[in-house]
Amino acid sequence: MAHGALCFLCPGLWISGEEIAAQMGVSRAAVWKQVRALRASGYRIESSPRRGYRLLEADRLDPERIRSGLQTKFLGRELHYFREVESTNDVSRSLAESCPDGTVVLAEVQTRGRGRLARSWASPPGGIWMSVVLKPALPLSRAYRANMAVSLAVAKALSRLYQLRAAIKWPNDILIGGRKISGILMEVRAELDRLDYVIAGVGLNVNIDPSRFPAEWNATSISDQLGHDVSRTELVQEILREIEEAYLKLGSEEIFEEWRSLSATTGRYVRISSLEGDFEGEAVSLGEDGSLCIKTENGLQRVLAGDCLHLRGREEA
Amino acid sequence: MAHGALCFLCPGLWISGEEIAAQMGVSRAAVWKQVRALRASGYRIESSPRRGYRLLEADRLDPERIRSGLQTKFLGRELHYFREVESTNDVSRSLAESCPDGTVVLAEVQTRGRGRLARSWASPPGGIWMSVVLKPALPLSRAYRANMAVSLAVAKALSRLYQLRAAIKWPNDILIGGRKISGILMEVRAELDRLDYVIAGVGLNVNIDPSRFPAEWNATSISDQLGHDVSRTELVQEILREIEEAYLKLGSEEIFEEWRSLSATTGRYVRISSLEGDFEGEAVSLGEDGSLCIKTENGLQRVLAGDCLHLRGREEA
Repeated sequence: MAHGALCFLCPGLWISGEEIAAQMGVSRAAVWKQVRALRASGYRIESSPRRGYRLLEADRLDPERIRSGLQTKFLGRELHYFREVESTNDVSRSLAESCPDGTVVLAEVQTRGRGRLARSWASPPGGIWMSVVLKPALPLSRAYRANMAVSLAVAKALSRLYQLRAAIKWPNDILIGGRKISGILMEVRAELDRLDYVIAGVGLNVNIDPSRFPAEWNATSISDQLGHDVSRTELVQEILREIEEAYLKLGSEEIFEEWRSLSATTGRYVRISSLEGDFEGEAVSLGEDGSLCIKTENGLQRVLAGDCLHLRGREEA
Repeated sequence: MAHGALCFLCPGLWISGEEIAAQMGVSRAAVWKQVRALRASGYRIESSPRRGYRLLEADRLDPERIRSGLQTKFLGRELHYFREVESTNDVSRSLAESCPDGTVVLAEVQTRGRGRLARSWASPPGGIWMSVVLKPALPLSRAYRANMAVSLAVAKALSRLYQLRAAIKWPNDILIGGRKISGILMEVRAELDRLDYVIAGVGLNVNIDPSRFPAEWNATSISDQLGHDVSRTELVQEILREIEEAYLKLGSEEIFEEWRSLSATTGRYVRISSLEGDFEGEAVSLGEDGSLCIKTENGLQRVLAGDCLHLRGREEA
């Protein structure tokens, strides 16, 4: 309900408060209240006493435009677009059993976006909040390969389109200049023998002012890095192209080598918190199984997944 | 509908066809048709012109009796019993998100029982068709540990209660004298960091005449091995006790060592068909990650999961 007025706001076009009020059957004061709520959620809405309201969305995500310019064979050919969902991963899960390999769920806003381990994930307007359903012919124990492929794809898309030097923070964040721009959330359903499906959720700060996030998140965005907004439509297309490219060689040595070469973590002094224990030391190498090897006071330690804090040390990321 | 009459058949007690017909609101001929259908499904139903029908179930599974004699701390304390379900794994999946760790789903009959890779699994009356929902604090890459623990638990329960020498055929069958008595079907939902849940389905031929199965299944049952029926109630209790015991030391070296020591596969000449390829050779060892190492013509090959055929060779299992 809070976002009801959004339906009447068309990017770039003025519409009077009177007209919105009439169409929604509410008072003009109620329309104004909704506009304030939308602004608080991150929508950029211009207002003028004479002309009314205008939504400033440089590049509203248009599923038709995304599809028409898509350079993939199958990835994203089935694309579900929402203005607002609770979580694109949850929507994907409801589709995953019967949808084709490579189905994409994309939303302008997530109201209950999730990060790893059920942590909340801020997903305001201006970002890319997208999940891809993959059905690779892999045994369960190779599921981490999908995480490698998608992390790699996001990092490569940022480099290729904007010449941003994106690095992969183990296990599943993308950093630019040591600040977080993207996170990947991978969920799987499987038997021992075979993955039923993988859902790779991608959260990416695109045209977002990172000062709206708490400073301790150490977040950045593409607009923050470049000083101007970019076309999210083009970026979605490029990410999907890169995901498909990586997906088609999922089992290859090449994926691992590329993923490893983009690591922001190896060579850093890190603190790891995981189900396998807490460790501190130098991150010395990455394993073909996606694991991180840490040189601790008590010797080498391999960790398969967990929280990783890059500690300040010999080198700034 | 075909099994409607079952509700009126009480193990050991006679009930007239007339009474069943009256209660169900159908003709006596319809009752007789249902009894025939039940017999075809494997139910043992005695009939007498004077006394009517009597269900011969030596040991109907009684959830109250199972619970009251349960020697576990938490496993099976929440137990869902059904006379008939499509699949206990499917029921478990619908419960898994909100049910407690160690919840058990048990059925007299599965109408759409599944084995690995969506193969059908015969689940007539007289067996144990049971799924256990486990929520271990393990990263995804250690999910195979749950398969080890449950396989081990079933094998140990058979040895302890009936002195049957049960062996584990890689990756997830239990054999007695080279013939299949049980299969485990493991399904997981997880993030990379952490398993949300594991559903371990156990199918076990207990009081079943294996001649009702196709000869090529090479199946056996407990009654076939011992020459008499056994109490499924006691057996369920013992399996749950063993699963809990194994589950409580899931991460330990001991589980792996016990699992390995009961292998029916190592030392055998095998043919493997898997997502990682097809291989033939001697099964030389098992890995701590649940993998099988095969000595092929082209050298050693490790496989993480797949179909395994024990070929006749130097030794009969």
